[in-house]
Amino acid sequence: MAQDLWKRYQKYLCVCDEIGLRLDPSRMAFGDDFLAGMEKRMAAAFDEMEKLEAGAIANPDEGRQVGHYWLRAPELAPTPEIGRAIEEAQQQVRGFARRVHRGEIAAPGGRPFTDLLVIGIGGSALGPQLAADALGDPRRDRLRPHFFDNTDPDGMDRVLAGLGERLATTLVLVISKSGGTAETRNGMLVAQAAFAGGALAFPRQAAAITGAGSQLDRTAEAEGWLARFPMWDFVGGRTSELSAVGLLPAALQGLDIDGLLAGARACDEVTRRRELAKNPAAWLAVLWYYATGGRGERDMVVLPYKDRLLLFSRYLQQLIMESLGKGRDLAGNEVAQGIAVYGNKGATDQHAYVQQLREGVPNFFATFIEVLEDGGPPLEVEKEATCGDFLRGFRLGTREALWAAGRESITITIDRIDGPGLGVLIALYERAVGFYASLVGINAYHQPGVEAGKKAAAEVLALQRRLLDHLRSEGRAQNLDAIAAALGESERKEWIFQLLEGLVANGRGVARVRGDSPFGGTWRSTR
Amino acid sequence: MAQDLWKRYQKYLCVCDEIGLRLDPSRMAFGDDFLAGMEKRMAAAFDEMEKLEAGAIANPDEGRQVGHYWLRAPELAPTPEIGRAIEEAQQQVRGFARRVHRGEIAAPGGRPFTDLLVIGIGGSALGPQLAADALGDPRRDRLRPHFFDNTDPDGMDRVLAGLGERLATTLVLVISKSGGTAETRNGMLVAQAAFAGGALAFPRQAAAITGAGSQLDRTAEAEGWLARFPMWDFVGGRTSELSAVGLLPAALQGLDIDGLLAGARACDEVTRRRELAKNPAAWLAVLWYYATGGRGERDMVVLPYKDRLLLFSRYLQQLIMESLGKGRDLAGNEVAQGIAVYGNKGATDQHAYVQQLREGVPNFFATFIEVLEDGGPPLEVEKEATCGDFLRGFRLGTREALWAAGRESITITIDRIDGPGLGVLIALYERAVGFYASLVGINAYHQPGVEAGKKAAAEVLALQRRLLDHLRSEGRAQNLDAIAAALGESERKEWIFQLLEGLVANGRGVARVRGDSPFGGTWRSTR
Repeated sequence: MAQDLWKRYQKYLCVCDEIGLRLDPSRMAFGDDFLAGMEKRMAAAFDEMEKLEAGAIANPDEGRQVGHYWLRAPELAPTPEIGRAIEEAQQQVRGFARRVHRGEIAAPGGRPFTDLLVIGIGGSALGPQLAADALGDPRRDRLRPHFFDNTDPDGMDRVLAGLGERLATTLVLVISKSGGTAETRNGMLVAQAAFAGGALAFPRQAAAITGAGSQLDRTAEAEGWLARFPMWDFVGGRTSELSAVGLLPAALQGLDIDGLLAGARACDEVTRRRELAKNPAAWLAVLWYYATGGRGERDMVVLPYKDRLLLFSRYLQQLIMESLGKGRDLAGNEVAQGIAVYGNKGATDQHAYVQQLREGVPNFFATFIEVLEDGGPPLEVEKEATCGDFLRGFRLGTREALWAAGRESITITIDRIDGPGLGVLIALYERAVGFYASLVGINAYHQPGVEAGKKAAAEVLALQRRLLDHLRSEGRAQNLDAIAAALGESERKEWIFQLLEGLVANGRGVARVRGDSPFGGTWRSTR
Repeated sequence: MAQDLWKRYQKYLCVCDEIGLRLDPSRMAFGDDFLAGMEKRMAAAFDEMEKLEAGAIANPDEGRQVGHYWLRAPELAPTPEIGRAIEEAQQQVRGFARRVHRGEIAAPGGRPFTDLLVIGIGGSALGPQLAADALGDPRRDRLRPHFFDNTDPDGMDRVLAGLGERLATTLVLVISKSGGTAETRNGMLVAQAAFAGGALAFPRQAAAITGAGSQLDRTAEAEGWLARFPMWDFVGGRTSELSAVGLLPAALQGLDIDGLLAGARACDEVTRRRELAKNPAAWLAVLWYYATGGRGERDMVVLPYKDRLLLFSRYLQQLIMESLGKGRDLAGNEVAQGIAVYGNKGATDQHAYVQQLREGVPNFFATFIEVLEDGGPPLEVEKEATCGDFLRGFRLGTREALWAAGRESITITIDRIDGPGLGVLIALYERAVGFYASLVGINAYHQPGVEAGKKAAAEVLALQRRLLDHLRSEGRAQNLDAIAAALGESERKEWIFQLLEGLVANGRGVARVRGDSPFGGTWRSTR
């Protein structure tokens, strides 16, 4: 058996020295005829990817091109205008970061910027957060990164508390394609209030990354912000890390954005190979297909054995689940597709849930990510064994133990985590997602399912406004039935009840007058 | 339908005002006879829990009592000795933290401690990390917390770089019950090397939390560390947050440990109620049973709408998956149990993977966690709408959108995240896990599946030592077959190959001499 495994390992190991990457599929238990059986489907996937890269409307629902591959190869863009726009944006990013680092662009009073506050959510936060953590180092960072990635007032308050007096030397980036994302807009307003509270001029410390002509773009222009950087319809949020969205915060932090771009570009070249066995992105796609039956039947557990990659699985949750988690295929059939993704880091997770992976419900396949170069000082903690040796031993040991229990895994090995290495990993998964979407026939580039929640949220907020108006004009305390009837919203008593509870708890001018049961009280305005 | 839902909401809402908690099961689509049908099974679960709390050997494999409930109610401990040990440890924690805060215990030279470095993994890291993040605030923290929670040399190096000169005023806590956990031992050695490099005396800045008589305990005693705190066999790692493991780092940071204990204690009182419909922990257990068929058929997606609870789902991954992910039930039958847990925070995750939750593969149920009090300044970002209102709107909207798509969810509402609130959440899930384990007949308190990986890792490290010895004594370059044959390890060529690659990449005295293919090279020692 061990000999067979060794043969299998040698036979299938996908070695891509040009990008410092290996992919080991040997612990996925597909049969010898598997690859040949996938050739035809993958040929169609390669064709579709080729068309996408050439500028086809690969996102038909939204009538959009899908251009994240052009970001690292502007010469491949379908028109010279797009190629030029990409190059100009990169030059603008490099120039702006250089001037900030040199102090030519500085906080009012000429003090150099010390900190960076990125305001964005989803694709406008996960990539920047991943890069900041994967490549950052307190010894070298030019600016210290911070994030508003939610509309939690307490969360933002705590970030501002951490900045303290350094708010005066904090550069703020507001990232939103439409400028209308509520969480980001709210974050900007909270930041502006903090600046006003400190008698600081927000526009002199702010830059926008947004679609040309968006509300945010116009505001930034009118108020004279430091700079405005573009977002384009042909780059989706979850694949925007190599646009200004990711490059600008990374460059300001002092990270190697040229390396990021070069790594992604080189990975794209490797993953355009039509020979499946030599293409690691194609491998991932067919292995996901094998593991999940092409129907999301198993979860993907992502275990990078490297602290710097802690956020990688969170980044992949968006990239993979938002791309693949679709209700209908391209032909309109109901399919309920997707693959659930979770994980943090090894060896740490071995002490958290590897118990379940090894013995419990076998509803997953694992992806180990190994980083070949350990980094850090090579301290021997035992005779001839370093901390990195232990990390390697735990990874190999866990892979072995899972395999012995019939649990399958993929191992990706990358030489090191630096700009190029991270660029490779990002590009690898972007293309794997695209291939897999072709295999199962879905549009990987839209997200129709997120609208319903936003729409319902807007209805909740509109209802709260009417509720507050009503309570103020009514004056007397009323019970829930009376309030709902007055609003003509007897179908929404539950929302009204929950809104009342929130208003009372947060001192928003509503008092609960009495009530023997949770629902039996009366409420009135105190304003 | 809306009226039916409102009736359902009122009928089932579990209100526990004494602990500031509500649990809303209305969006789980169980039928009207469901609760009655679970009564008998739950009666047995209550009986087992009662025996456990009274000191039964509830972890039969390891022959251990399970005493985490005694930590917040020492008077319930089965012997006066245990109760006294718990109280004394709490007094020791409070006294030590007080003396550190007053500067009576200070770094050499009398400088007050500024930072806290916690070295631990699994149960010795996840709880402390959760509390540090959920309750911490840069405006109030007495010491700034940092963690070594892995054996990644680069990761530890970066933490040390962040500490920089403040290492001289950093208090180190080493947490390991046996003292033999390799990652923690390695972390301690890395910290000691950094102290030595800075000409600092480690023992004068270190405290141990460990089992009496462990190797770590003896070392700490012999070297005269600042203090030693106990760990007991009757408290498992994943339920140790309210022992010294969690209380000491929290107290040193300046967090409200009395509140944590009081919240957990009060929650225990509520969750001992045998009336299922009034017991939120029993509700969780039966809802998990309903959702997963008692066989882990669906994943648990945990979505706290609160930045401070970002780490809660990672904490729950350990608590739930390590407790429930078991291969055999108590009768020895093969069962492959467990529930996969993942999630980060709302509204942020709406922009990551709620697309899949709403439209994609329906392999999950969600748990929304609402925090009623928003915190932060009540800035109105729109007319009569605060950031907190948006957060509430997004949560309600997403719950509604999921329900409309046939996706079920539980909502837990907690008044606020402070010491008592966090204590309530921890205790709530501890008891729910215990009840659920009874429902499916497994031992929730052991983790037999983690040994295999550790054992295999030890074999990997032992093989590497022999490999290095051999290469040095051999001198000449050899190919893989020759090396494996010389070691008598022809069955382990893959490990040998991977170890060679790691040794070469990390400058560990092994050179790859030549090789046309990945496997075709020869290797020799350079030392």
